[in-house]
Amino acid sequence: MFAVEVRESIMVAHSLPDSFFGPAANKHGATFVVDVAFLGPALSRHNVVVDIGRAQAVLKAVLAPLHYQDLDVLPQFAGVLTTTEFLCRHIHHEICAAIRRGELGDGAEALSGIRVTLGETPLARAWYEAALSGA
Amino acid sequence: MFAVEVRESIMVAHSLPDSFFGPAANKHGATFVVDVAFLGPALSRHNVVVDIGRAQAVLKAVLAPLHYQDLDVLPQFAGVLTTTEFLCRHIHHEICAAIRRGELGDGAEALSGIRVTLGETPLARAWYEAALSGA
Amino acid sequence: MFAVEVRESIMVAHSLPDSFFGPAANKHGATFVVDVAFLGPALSRHNVVVDIGRAQAVLKAVLAPLHYQDLDVLPQFAGVLTTTEFLCRHIHHEICAAIRRGELGDGAEALSGIRVTLGETPLARAWYEAALSGA
Amino acid sequence: MFAVEVRESIMVAHSLPDSFFGPAANKHGATFVVDVAFLGPALSRHNVVVDIGRAQAVLKAVLAPLHYQDLDVLPQFAGVLTTTEFLCRHIHHEICAAIRRGELGDGAEALSGIRVTLGETPLARAWYEAALSGA
Amino acid sequence: MFAVEVRESIMVAHSLPDSFFGPAANKHGATFVVDVAFLGPALSRHNVVVDIGRAQAVLKAVLAPLHYQDLDVLPQFAGVLTTTEFLCRHIHHEICAAIRRGELGDGAEALSGIRVTLGETPLARAWYEAALSGA
Amino acid sequence: MFAVEVRESIMVAHSLPDSFFGPAANKHGATFVVDVAFLGPALSRHNVVVDIGRAQAVLKAVLAPLHYQDLDVLPQFAGVLTTTEFLCRHIHHEICAAIRRGELGDGAEALSGIRVTLGETPLARAWYEAALSGA
Repeated sequence: MFAVEVRESIMVAHSLPDSFFGPAANKHGATFVVDVAFLGPALSRHNVVVDIGRAQAVLKAVLAPLHYQDLDVLPQFAGVLTTTEFLCRHIHHEICAAIRRGELGDGAEALSGIRVTLGETPLARAWYEAALSGA
Repeated sequence: MFAVEVRESIMVAHSLPDSFFGPAANKHGATFVVDVAFLGPALSRHNVVVDIGRAQAVLKAVLAPLHYQDLDVLPQFAGVLTTTEFLCRHIHHEICAAIRRGELGDGAEALSGIRVTLGETPLARAWYEAALSGA
Repeated sequence: MFAVEVRESIMVAHSLPDSFFGPAANKHGATFVVDVAFLGPALSRHNVVVDIGRAQAVLKAVLAPLHYQDLDVLPQFAGVLTTTEFLCRHIHHEICAAIRRGELGDGAEALSGIRVTLGETPLARAWYEAALSGA
Repeated sequence: MFAVEVRESIMVAHSLPDSFFGPAANKHGATFVVDVAFLGPALSRHNVVVDIGRAQAVLKAVLAPLHYQDLDVLPQFAGVLTTTEFLCRHIHHEICAAIRRGELGDGAEALSGIRVTLGETPLARAWYEAALSGA
Repeated sequence: MFAVEVRESIMVAHSLPDSFFGPAANKHGATFVVDVAFLGPALSRHNVVVDIGRAQAVLKAVLAPLHYQDLDVLPQFAGVLTTTEFLCRHIHHEICAAIRRGELGDGAEALSGIRVTLGETPLARAWYEAALSGA
Repeated sequence: MFAVEVRESIMVAHSLPDSFFGPAANKHGATFVVDVAFLGPALSRHNVVVDIGRAQAVLKAVLAPLHYQDLDVLPQFAGVLTTTEFLCRHIHHEICAAIRRGELGDGAEALSGIRVTLGETPLARAWYEAALSGA
């Protein structure tokens, strides 16, 4: 199994309005350090899993609607508890959609999985790993 | 697969009294940077794998009997080579026991595995990953 | 010159409502990784700059009113641009006030300076270093 | 599953002479931070996966022919696109060859896999994980 | 004293053709992780040392002529030993020139110094700190 | 001002037998991540502050008597509280002694200072910076 992983950060506000979350029920914020790993069984004829420049561009494009935003007022997250785990899966879905639109190039057909990791502090992180989702 | 991972450190003395270990047969010590990942197939109704606050509390409680100790004089390790790999598995067992006692809450029933990583220097680490152990 | 430095993180929402800041004028958020260095010319009779346990407790107490908050609604920041640089100086002032109240113990009299560093992403940070401020 | 992972760095020049790689088609260079994880199902009678000192020595020996070199002029890489992914697999093969020569000792027979990770910048890395390769 | 520091990486080939450097006399390469700190005595009316977005843009522009290059064939380095220390000072000079051209905006007039740090491996780095250089 | 900094780790046991230190009065241990910065006003004719290979060799030699030891039984530390701050200054003195013995080469005459930083956990570190000490 091969993998290529690229990193970007986003800075967002949100709240987790449920007593389950204690003080995180308040409006607060986070720098999420986002690592996306592209997993594949073989290398392309250019000896890569995916074009790393394209991988970085796709990640940046996928994160752009979240960066410098208050997640509580984004329509796509209305009524959703935007936990770190939820955001990992959300970004996974968006990366898969970009791949289906061809934004990652030909090599992306052979990918066997995507892992999205979000670090919220130096002491806590979450991740979601799954095969490429269908439409 | 989802995961949440939390980090704590412990500072311990120990020796590895076997010529196999060369200079580490001496009494020496380590700061072990301990990462525990809780792995699960699905999110709870609160969109989490486990309550991260409880995860941190469980990890701190499991490490308390080791922090600031000389492992060579602890009865539970008498005659044991307390290698980094051994300590990973020991902490895994203790985390599983805490889960069985209900200390991690309801979400913990669905966990499919636990991974315990111990960093001993910036250049060397070990880990142990396994399903939740039974009693 | 000796120094001891301790680290904590806070997760806050805020906005920087001035066109100077581009997209950061929006409500967004940050995990600030806060390092506070206590600088002194000499060691105490216990061979320390300050009691590191007390240093960690003082830092945690100083950060508690900010952690999990929206800085835009805190009265003490009304009308203030809460940039990373501003927050460094604010935390410096609060640490100095805690020292004047004796919360850091006897060793703190001899301190020659305090440096507060806030990391906002893995690629950007700010700091403020100054002598202990008077009342 | 147990693992032990050790780290070394190499500093190499190379080019990726194909228009696919954009500016990386130029002669340029990299510090590759190399992590090699030795994965095994059980611990030896010394409570280790492998002797960590030997693991470090094997890694250093495997990397020596690459360190401070221009990969473009090494005969073993003639006509090869020496991407980060390719180098992960190359180092995996060399580690496996060293294990078959007995350089990692008796514990190495039980290893179930090797993972080689190369970090090329703080924002991008690749890895290759596979079972021990045969001759 | 206030500071803002931003980070970028460059990937270059070079050689240090003098027997003083042992194996580094060969053509080899490095990922240099470049941190540039902008130091100033006071905050602007926007509560910043410098506009961090502009700081990142200036750093990227200053590094562009070096990124993905072989320093041995760049005319500006003909006959120069391009050590890590030398490159720190070179980048310092280029940052200062950009500031004199006004690329960092009005706040940059008040800066008291610039520190440029280059990490070459996780175990070795160099830096150069000086006041803004004149024309 | 120029600087070159190199890193090594040591793994030691010790105790701090004074009630001031709470649980750290027990025999425990630490991995100390040791960074030594060599500070100088100018570059040598080889464009370096010091020969980095020699710097690494000097650091390794200075740390060898501490690595894998119990500091409580070393004669040179009898009756001493071996705090992190104390160890910073001890290593500073030993580095200076090595420089006076010529082990760092000719460039070392021009050094203006040495800074020794010891990280004891990811959340706490100490340092000592001073001019080269005389005999």
